[in-house]
Amino acid sequence: MPLRHGEGRKDHLTSFGGLAALSLDALSSVAYGPEAMLLVLAAAGSSALHLSLPIAVAIAALLAVLVFSYCQVIAVHPDGGGAYAVGKQDLGATVSLLAGASLVVDYVLTVAVSLAAGAASLASAFPVLAPHLLEVCLAGLILLTVVNLWGIAESARILMLPMVVFVCAILGVIVVGIVRSHPAAVVGTAAPMPVSETVGVLLILKAFAAGCSALTGVEAIANGVPSFREPRAKLAQRTELMLGALLGPMLVGLAVVVVHQHIAPRTGVTVLAQATAGAFGGGWAYSATNIVVALVLALAANTSFGGLPVLMSLLAKDHRLPHLFALRAERPVYRFGVVVLASLAAILLIAVDAATDRLIPLYAIGVFIGFTISQAGLLRHWYRQRPSSWLPRAVLNGTGAVLTATAALVFVGTKFTEGAWLVVIAVPALMLLFSRVQSYYRVVGNELGLGTTPDRPNGGRSLVIVPVGQISRLTEYALTAALSFGDEVVAVSIHLDPEYSERFRAAWEEWNPGVRLEVVESPHRSLIHPILDYVRQAQCDGRQIAVLIPEVEPRRRRYRILQNQRGLLLATVLRARTDVLVCTLPYRLTSR
Amino acid sequence: MPLRHGEGRKDHLTSFGGLAALSLDALSSVAYGPEAMLLVLAAAGSSALHLSLPIAVAIAALLAVLVFSYCQVIAVHPDGGGAYAVGKQDLGATVSLLAGASLVVDYVLTVAVSLAAGAASLASAFPVLAPHLLEVCLAGLILLTVVNLWGIAESARILMLPMVVFVCAILGVIVVGIVRSHPAAVVGTAAPMPVSETVGVLLILKAFAAGCSALTGVEAIANGVPSFREPRAKLAQRTELMLGALLGPMLVGLAVVVVHQHIAPRTGVTVLAQATAGAFGGGWAYSATNIVVALVLALAANTSFGGLPVLMSLLAKDHRLPHLFALRAERPVYRFGVVVLASLAAILLIAVDAATDRLIPLYAIGVFIGFTISQAGLLRHWYRQRPSSWLPRAVLNGTGAVLTATAALVFVGTKFTEGAWLVVIAVPALMLLFSRVQSYYRVVGNELGLGTTPDRPNGGRSLVIVPVGQISRLTEYALTAALSFGDEVVAVSIHLDPEYSERFRAAWEEWNPGVRLEVVESPHRSLIHPILDYVRQAQCDGRQIAVLIPEVEPRRRRYRILQNQRGLLLATVLRARTDVLVCTLPYRLTSR
Repeated sequence: MPLRHGEGRKDHLTSFGGLAALSLDALSSVAYGPEAMLLVLAAAGSSALHLSLPIAVAIAALLAVLVFSYCQVIAVHPDGGGAYAVGKQDLGATVSLLAGASLVVDYVLTVAVSLAAGAASLASAFPVLAPHLLEVCLAGLILLTVVNLWGIAESARILMLPMVVFVCAILGVIVVGIVRSHPAAVVGTAAPMPVSETVGVLLILKAFAAGCSALTGVEAIANGVPSFREPRAKLAQRTELMLGALLGPMLVGLAVVVVHQHIAPRTGVTVLAQATAGAFGGGWAYSATNIVVALVLALAANTSFGGLPVLMSLLAKDHRLPHLFALRAERPVYRFGVVVLASLAAILLIAVDAATDRLIPLYAIGVFIGFTISQAGLLRHWYRQRPSSWLPRAVLNGTGAVLTATAALVFVGTKFTEGAWLVVIAVPALMLLFSRVQSYYRVVGNELGLGTTPDRPNGGRSLVIVPVGQISRLTEYALTAALSFGDEVVAVSIHLDPEYSERFRAAWEEWNPGVRLEVVESPHRSLIHPILDYVRQAQCDGRQIAVLIPEVEPRRRRYRILQNQRGLLLATVLRARTDVLVCTLPYRLTSR
Repeated sequence: MPLRHGEGRKDHLTSFGGLAALSLDALSSVAYGPEAMLLVLAAAGSSALHLSLPIAVAIAALLAVLVFSYCQVIAVHPDGGGAYAVGKQDLGATVSLLAGASLVVDYVLTVAVSLAAGAASLASAFPVLAPHLLEVCLAGLILLTVVNLWGIAESARILMLPMVVFVCAILGVIVVGIVRSHPAAVVGTAAPMPVSETVGVLLILKAFAAGCSALTGVEAIANGVPSFREPRAKLAQRTELMLGALLGPMLVGLAVVVVHQHIAPRTGVTVLAQATAGAFGGGWAYSATNIVVALVLALAANTSFGGLPVLMSLLAKDHRLPHLFALRAERPVYRFGVVVLASLAAILLIAVDAATDRLIPLYAIGVFIGFTISQAGLLRHWYRQRPSSWLPRAVLNGTGAVLTATAALVFVGTKFTEGAWLVVIAVPALMLLFSRVQSYYRVVGNELGLGTTPDRPNGGRSLVIVPVGQISRLTEYALTAALSFGDEVVAVSIHLDPEYSERFRAAWEEWNPGVRLEVVESPHRSLIHPILDYVRQAQCDGRQIAVLIPEVEPRRRRYRILQNQRGLLLATVLRARTDVLVCTLPYRLTSR
């Protein structure tokens, strides 16, 4: 559900380009979805594993519902925005807060899950990495962070090649795996499978919910509609259908291979890697496929780095996050977001020791909340608008909403103690944060009179105060500026020593710059507080007051520490304790 | 030699108060000086220990020379300043750089040595602390740091009581220890004394030099002359003589006790503690004396926290450190100094594992450089001025200079590989830093035309640019200020969306604030760069330009993150890339 690459930029994706730019997360989830399902079934013994085929068919059916739903979301919200936009428009403030919070959680989890699954895939190809999954994940995370801090040009074209190779490899695994009559190679260690559950409705529900983690990402296209070429909605719908047509057969096909080859979860090798070995043997094709899978998962993780800033700027524009985040095009803001996202993902990866299956419940809860909100929003939309043939659409979306809400509830209920509590705490905490921020901005907006017409501004008399230490070209430069802006200008000089202050006064009179000099003696050795006191007294007569602080700017950065500390201190104190205009004037050195 | 407590403040010390405020470091060095000497002698076997008495007499003789020299320094430099002032006036720039650098090193070492000796003293009273000397030191250091960050009122009166108790305790140890005919108690473990040296000139020189560490601090009174009551010089000289009269007998007396009671260095207990046990037994008086010694050593360490900022401000006034440090009365500057001093002392203590005897050579080198400079400066002074009876004075100071220079060289030569190399690197490095800073300020001063009379400043036409986001009371407030200062005012508004910018223009016309509005469209989503471009274009016509940035100031600090980030970013960019006046205007909220 996270908003994807390129969203917000109008970069005219074709429907095929859109598949590369917006669907990598969804396609790559075949690397962990089927495995998550098998892990649940394995708890009921190896005989339960054949259930994976019917469950995969059910998941594919849900996928079909979701794909058709999102085609309608695209038609109804051609400006994009996904669950957050749908929630805001059709379901009210609280639901959109819920959508926003679960989206933020999911961006973090997309990074963590994709990296963990990618590391497992890499370790399947290179068993030497198997004991170091966490290190592999963190290395990948650091790489992604650096690349994103440095800034990358987003390009659908670059993503096309890995996507095509990935899809062909997976389809190859399925086709060859089914055609071959016996397993070609055995990789990994057989995991002991203690039978701890019996086959029943709850087990099947749990396996269904776990397998549904393969559906994460199908909402990204609906979020990114503005990135498509005109006719946008049409192209985006076509991309959504292409995604469904690829992902559904891949899921069902992999389930067939699993059953056909009697694949069970093993340690040190992923289910997808076992299927690959079953199809291609253990040679170069096996290694190459695993590497491609790992690469595509890393690219899927990367989509969050593009998507979270977009979501945060949407939230900031709705006054639900500090307005700062609306400035996402400004580098410091963007970098701040990148570092925060990477840090949270790192904490999660360390907490679960890079185990994909422990992250998936957390991930799926957020994603399914989003699915549910989108469908429920459409339901409400149809019910309100009642276009022709609205009833079948409403039934479709209603069914989808019930199914996805069920999956979310199953995850929360069955995995609460295994980490789902974290989402149950984090999502409401984020919602509270958003609404507190929003109410702050509302109160401040009222005080500032936003939306009302203020009085007309009227200028008055002005006084510019220039703190002066010595007589120099810097003083001349500062006074020149001050004389241009103020009706009256006064130079204030603080001296610790009465003798020196006399000499200074004499030198000033000799210079005769046409500006009144006030000499203040400071017995307490502070240079800042006497100026503060002077400014406060001057404030009494109702004039507009500015304090002009000249700053010497060295050419080289390393000389900064040698200059301006006094001005910086003074400016800070004046800003904190007075209401005057605090002005700084750079004087650039040419020599140093 | 470090400048001490109260220096720079004219707080009218009496001669006795001066002893408490300025001599704790010198008096407390009896806690480690004799021990350092015995450790050197012990290397030649226990029979060499009796040499401690003649060497102590020689040290006391050097003390007498130093005391008389500093009485003359006080007479010649009644404004204080010690070795740095003497060096600057009588020996030229390079020597004063040397004095300044060794002073800085010594402030750090005073803290480290005093804390290490204090911890050893405390561990003598409470053997359970013996394996944790470093932890005790660091705890003491943290306590001192916190107290100094919080700020303490310096007061000679508070220091008098511990000083009097300390002096009485040491004199009691000496008198009782000599009167008693046999050792009363044995404390600590006898250390194995491998005989690795023979008695010879070098050994005696080394023992002399090590014992001279007991003289550290005798220069503090000369640094602090301005703190005394009138007649300043007279009172300060009296204090210096009192110090000599106390310290000399204490040193010789302790040597007599050492020989009389056959005291040798032991592990886990200091030499002073052994002497205390010999005099008072192992009971409460023993513990109490050790605690008092530790307390006085901690107070001696504390003098550096008062003294280093004074020295740094002197260096800053001579343009040898960033001018920032001249503002030592300003809290942030003072706190910065405290933290840096504490960090360096902590690094040293950790590096030597809180072993006093490993720090003493480093400490003594710097102190003796200072002694040598003071004496050589006086020699030069007498030779230049040639007052009546200048020759005996010159001989006295020349002898003193030769003796102290010898001690410094002995330390550097014999302890080079044991840590003295650090001083040999640090002192020239600091000198280089000071002279680089000085040459920077000279070049900049020339460019600014310091000491020349600049042209008369002439004001010109002015333009105030106000970046505007919405129409609100904040806008009205900002435009009111702008109209007071500018000949012309223009409001600049950046919009991403052409439609919104049309609406904004209409609202502006309806409000009709009497200020021209410029709407700039930003297709790249940046709000900062379009303003930067606008300002740069406006700069072309030669007017003085100010950019006025209103800032909403929430009442509570925690709401800061929600406001002003845009203004802060803009101000930073404008300061870095343009020469315009950047003004910020606080608008204080009352509601939040």
